[in-house]
Amino acid sequence: MSKAGDDEGVPGGRGEPADGKTPSKLSAPSSTPGWGKVSCPCCASERVEPLVLVKLGQKVIPETKRWLIKLIRAPQKEGGAGLLAHPGEDATGNIIVLSAPRCTLLRATEELGLCKIYRNGEMEAFAYDDRDNFRDSDNMEVFLTSAERQYIIKYELDGLRAQKDLRIPGMLDSCTLQRRDNIWQKLGAAGVIVDTFPLHNPGKLKDLSEAWYAGNQLAQPLDKVNEYFGSSMAFYFSFLDFYTWSLLPPAILGIFIAYFSREVQREMLQSVSGSQAGEVQDDPEPLISGHMLQAVFSMLWSTVFMEMWKRRRASLSYRWGTLNLAERFAEPRPGFHGDLGVNPVTGRVEPLFPEWKRDLRMALVSVPVVGLFLGLVVLGMMCFYWAEARVQQLHKDWDSMISQALLYTPSVLHIVYTNMLATVYKTVATSLTEYENHREESAYENHLTGKVLVFTFFNNFAVLFHIAFFKQDVTLLRKRLASLLIITQLVNQVTEVVIPFLVDRFISAPHRAENKDDPEEDKFRNQGTLPPFPGLFAEYIELLVQFGYLSLFSCVFPLTAILLLLNNLTEIRSDAYKVCKLFRKPFYPPVASMGVWQHAFEVLSFVSVVSNCWLLLLSPRVQELSQEAEMTGSNLLMGAVIVEHVLILVKVIMAALIPDEPDWIRKKREHIEYTSMQALRQQKLNVQES
Amino acid sequence: MSKAGDDEGVPGGRGEPADGKTPSKLSAPSSTPGWGKVSCPCCASERVEPLVLVKLGQKVIPETKRWLIKLIRAPQKEGGAGLLAHPGEDATGNIIVLSAPRCTLLRATEELGLCKIYRNGEMEAFAYDDRDNFRDSDNMEVFLTSAERQYIIKYELDGLRAQKDLRIPGMLDSCTLQRRDNIWQKLGAAGVIVDTFPLHNPGKLKDLSEAWYAGNQLAQPLDKVNEYFGSSMAFYFSFLDFYTWSLLPPAILGIFIAYFSREVQREMLQSVSGSQAGEVQDDPEPLISGHMLQAVFSMLWSTVFMEMWKRRRASLSYRWGTLNLAERFAEPRPGFHGDLGVNPVTGRVEPLFPEWKRDLRMALVSVPVVGLFLGLVVLGMMCFYWAEARVQQLHKDWDSMISQALLYTPSVLHIVYTNMLATVYKTVATSLTEYENHREESAYENHLTGKVLVFTFFNNFAVLFHIAFFKQDVTLLRKRLASLLIITQLVNQVTEVVIPFLVDRFISAPHRAENKDDPEEDKFRNQGTLPPFPGLFAEYIELLVQFGYLSLFSCVFPLTAILLLLNNLTEIRSDAYKVCKLFRKPFYPPVASMGVWQHAFEVLSFVSVVSNCWLLLLSPRVQELSQEAEMTGSNLLMGAVIVEHVLILVKVIMAALIPDEPDWIRKKREHIEYTSMQALRQQKLNVQES
Repeated sequence: MSKAGDDEGVPGGRGEPADGKTPSKLSAPSSTPGWGKVSCPCCASERVEPLVLVKLGQKVIPETKRWLIKLIRAPQKEGGAGLLAHPGEDATGNIIVLSAPRCTLLRATEELGLCKIYRNGEMEAFAYDDRDNFRDSDNMEVFLTSAERQYIIKYELDGLRAQKDLRIPGMLDSCTLQRRDNIWQKLGAAGVIVDTFPLHNPGKLKDLSEAWYAGNQLAQPLDKVNEYFGSSMAFYFSFLDFYTWSLLPPAILGIFIAYFSREVQREMLQSVSGSQAGEVQDDPEPLISGHMLQAVFSMLWSTVFMEMWKRRRASLSYRWGTLNLAERFAEPRPGFHGDLGVNPVTGRVEPLFPEWKRDLRMALVSVPVVGLFLGLVVLGMMCFYWAEARVQQLHKDWDSMISQALLYTPSVLHIVYTNMLATVYKTVATSLTEYENHREESAYENHLTGKVLVFTFFNNFAVLFHIAFFKQDVTLLRKRLASLLIITQLVNQVTEVVIPFLVDRFISAPHRAENKDDPEEDKFRNQGTLPPFPGLFAEYIELLVQFGYLSLFSCVFPLTAILLLLNNLTEIRSDAYKVCKLFRKPFYPPVASMGVWQHAFEVLSFVSVVSNCWLLLLSPRVQELSQEAEMTGSNLLMGAVIVEHVLILVKVIMAALIPDEPDWIRKKREHIEYTSMQALRQQKLNVQES
Repeated sequence: MSKAGDDEGVPGGRGEPADGKTPSKLSAPSSTPGWGKVSCPCCASERVEPLVLVKLGQKVIPETKRWLIKLIRAPQKEGGAGLLAHPGEDATGNIIVLSAPRCTLLRATEELGLCKIYRNGEMEAFAYDDRDNFRDSDNMEVFLTSAERQYIIKYELDGLRAQKDLRIPGMLDSCTLQRRDNIWQKLGAAGVIVDTFPLHNPGKLKDLSEAWYAGNQLAQPLDKVNEYFGSSMAFYFSFLDFYTWSLLPPAILGIFIAYFSREVQREMLQSVSGSQAGEVQDDPEPLISGHMLQAVFSMLWSTVFMEMWKRRRASLSYRWGTLNLAERFAEPRPGFHGDLGVNPVTGRVEPLFPEWKRDLRMALVSVPVVGLFLGLVVLGMMCFYWAEARVQQLHKDWDSMISQALLYTPSVLHIVYTNMLATVYKTVATSLTEYENHREESAYENHLTGKVLVFTFFNNFAVLFHIAFFKQDVTLLRKRLASLLIITQLVNQVTEVVIPFLVDRFISAPHRAENKDDPEEDKFRNQGTLPPFPGLFAEYIELLVQFGYLSLFSCVFPLTAILLLLNNLTEIRSDAYKVCKLFRKPFYPPVASMGVWQHAFEVLSFVSVVSNCWLLLLSPRVQELSQEAEMTGSNLLMGAVIVEHVLILVKVIMAALIPDEPDWIRKKREHIEYTSMQALRQQKLNVQES
């Protein structure tokens, strides 16, 4: 916590370097058990910032802990992690606090391919040997973001591999490490390490939360979020922000339509009241109904929105230094396995796994299994409808208490079935992705997310699609959509924030009451009692589902956009509160985009054309008009198909024409390409001469 | 012509270096008027290969010619082209023969970003300073292809810019060059230079033609084509080759269907004989007709074919060293203009033109104008149909000789109109593309080709689409297609090859009778009497149109593929004969792909799904089946729409799943990226240290 740039006072026993001597044991880099002496000359820093906490199993004996600390402190050349480790209160306690010396941080920055500000003010890929020319490279707490420093520790720990066959000291003989085993994974499996999580910095967190959700400010402090939580989180909130403001045009249009179109008002009354009361056919409707306007607008809007977001993403990624990450060139992720060989790209010896084998596994195992589960969802839905029809029939025939009770059975069974399926599927998806054996963490994440995403989305929309395409009942669809929009959003906000808040405040917090005079260790330990952050999947899928409601079915319920806009304005705050207060700080690697979610939103934007055209075709107004014009069903359908094809064509052309990155980023990227081309030529020559 | 690697004797007075002294003046690098002394030490070569011929205007006086030769010979630092120039017979003749010294060639190779074989056997981007480590870099005639050497001369000439305001010696005062004017363009406009074209090498040409079309070999000597004509031409022939062999599966399927399906046989008889004779409904048809099978197969086949071609393209491009061309980083093309400024990518001073201005010009000028012309095509077609209906009516009413003659008027007028429109459009498209002011030659080419392509394609298919979608007459479509396939191909072959051949043999050749003892200059001059090569546009559009017949309408005429296969087998030979014998050698820049044609084929492959589904819907067999099954028109249409959407989805997924480059190329590319990243870091450090 002893932070150089931290001007505001944070209560608690912190080791202020200015104070000369150190009130807390944790910040004293002097004697054992304390921070280990740093061996490299460049890292002679007085202050050490506690970054990551490692929690050991209860049964771990001091011998094992000493061995582990030694391993963490050992230089990377000798197979260690090159980190700083503090044994907490004493050598017998079950925590280790980790930090990283400057040289380890800088080397990892180069390996990860992060860009930092060069002395000429441009972002350039960081190079360790050239470190003195990067701005602030002498002050790690300014040079790297807090999230980057913590991620680098995880990266180094994950990279620990046994140099030779080894028995873990103080453990049973069964716990041995083979050569090139991933040590951190093995120790986790053996129960030596229970938990590894980054530590919150209360001072910074307070600053962040004040700028983020405590006040009434409209803009989010995205750079600060990136600084504290890392770029994955920052990209989520940037997207949420961008998306929310992009909802303004459809929201305004929706309000206009709801205000001016009598037809829409009537329908909305119906869908809310459930009655057919408003049915008063009075004056002639305009030829182009509000629904059509809304549908065409929302179809084109979604493409413009996605393309503009891509440009925003490129700017943010440049700003946060993640534009040319070098994950492909770094060490493979811990779970990756394969035969040892020379990587043809980097020339390093590491496990290799042929691409075609992975492709084969995906094609022959993953795809059929995912298909099977999607089939099970459909089967479940069909069984549900069949069973419901049967019990309805039964109830009519018998009309007894038993048959009355039976009426609820199909729904209950279906809910149980769906939930079980989802749980099983998540496990299966993880094993499948593990089996696919991806080399990069991001590829693993994207494939896992992709699998779960398809299933979840299918699960969410199966009923709506069934109503729209098979039952062809627009009124029912409108009712469902309205209730989903209002109820699901409310339920989500409650389950996501209110319940964790209450649990935290009234159940967990009393056990965690902090005292100013508590040793630093106890405060760290307390952070471990918070639940781990469940990840951004739930947040993204929520956005995707609402985007689905908006784009797929917007034409039946024009107020969707305004409802979502209002929901998201609170969502931003509640999500921010959640990540800041209710969970442990998560580890997030630096990323350049939102990964597979980007594609999911784009696919949805194209599917929306199909569904909107179909819904317009079903809409009573269009049916009426076609009857007046004496069009046959075929002609009407043909018209809808032509409109659909034209709209898809327009969307494809728009997507192709709007460049994915702003002009200035393209120039910078090309400049980097040009200079690296030049440098490559130069280097070959230098090698030749020397 | 004095070529080092050229073992086979070529008759004619060539300067053999082994002979000691030189029988022809052209190869003597000694005294004026001869090859100028080469000033740089690395180029002390005894042999000079005549590469390019410049033809001057008749009125150009020797003073101007001397000035021009001096300019061409001057080193690049002094604003010259750094080339070798030979004044032909004497200083008063109207030709200049050009060649290039080694250092100019090598520097241009680096500027163009060509890859060559490094000493370790890998392809690497050539670097001038590192030249000694590239294989054969001391022998230009092995190191660079003949096409590359000649293109480099054109590249240097095109890059000539006036260093200061200058009056052209020996010309009127009105002919002055302003600073940074493109000299070669200005001289062309002023009539000083009439023609610049590369010279054929009879020996090599003979070798090439023997390996290419003289024998009965199935495979084309693509590497030799690349060597002699350059990669643009080689890509065309590679594509033609790949496409022809890819026609085998649909051709075999087509033959099977034609053999086994009675329905198809009947229809084909009808379309050829024109009568309804074969109409004998006998035994029951299978449920899935041959047409459906053919259509679904061809829709999926076209995607696989395009994806496999992309992979082949990547391999060829690697093999020919054009995988990472540096056109973006090179000098802009001669016609490019803009305000002088510092290029943010390369840091060089050159004309700059903002991207948004170009986009604006395209959006506000080019797109509307192209749209207007497409509208004129439609208008022409509509007028034609209207006029035809009117004259038919008139003929019925009057029934005289005059009305009989009038019957032909609409067709004649329509043909005249279409041809005039096409001619005007070509001029307009060129001016539009010039006005868009593209920086790179390839961008200019692609935009020009794209414009002409859209128009030509529209012109070709408007009538077929009209028949298919408006008249909805499958029989007429089948008839048209059969006649187009057979007649157009025949006409094409005749106009493209037979006529130029006859003209050449009986009209031009007698004037060009060569004598073994003729001076070298006369032989060069003779090559100037051949017509210039009209470019690959006509060749590609022919392929595109046939691909259109095949993929868009294949389901109505199953024998399309086999007819095209047979046509293409002869097409390969006749095209090869044409480029070798009937035209001057063209200049072609090194390219990495077939540019915009790739996209055109891909777009067609998607449009084919729409048209095939529609044609199947119209087909009598499907109509019959639906009547038997008592389906309404709407249901049938709905089915077709669903099938169409599923097929498009499958195609999109297939295109996404098949990687665009083979694994080994991806690895090599990533390796280059990795090493350049490393080199960039290293270079910054070196700069820092020095």
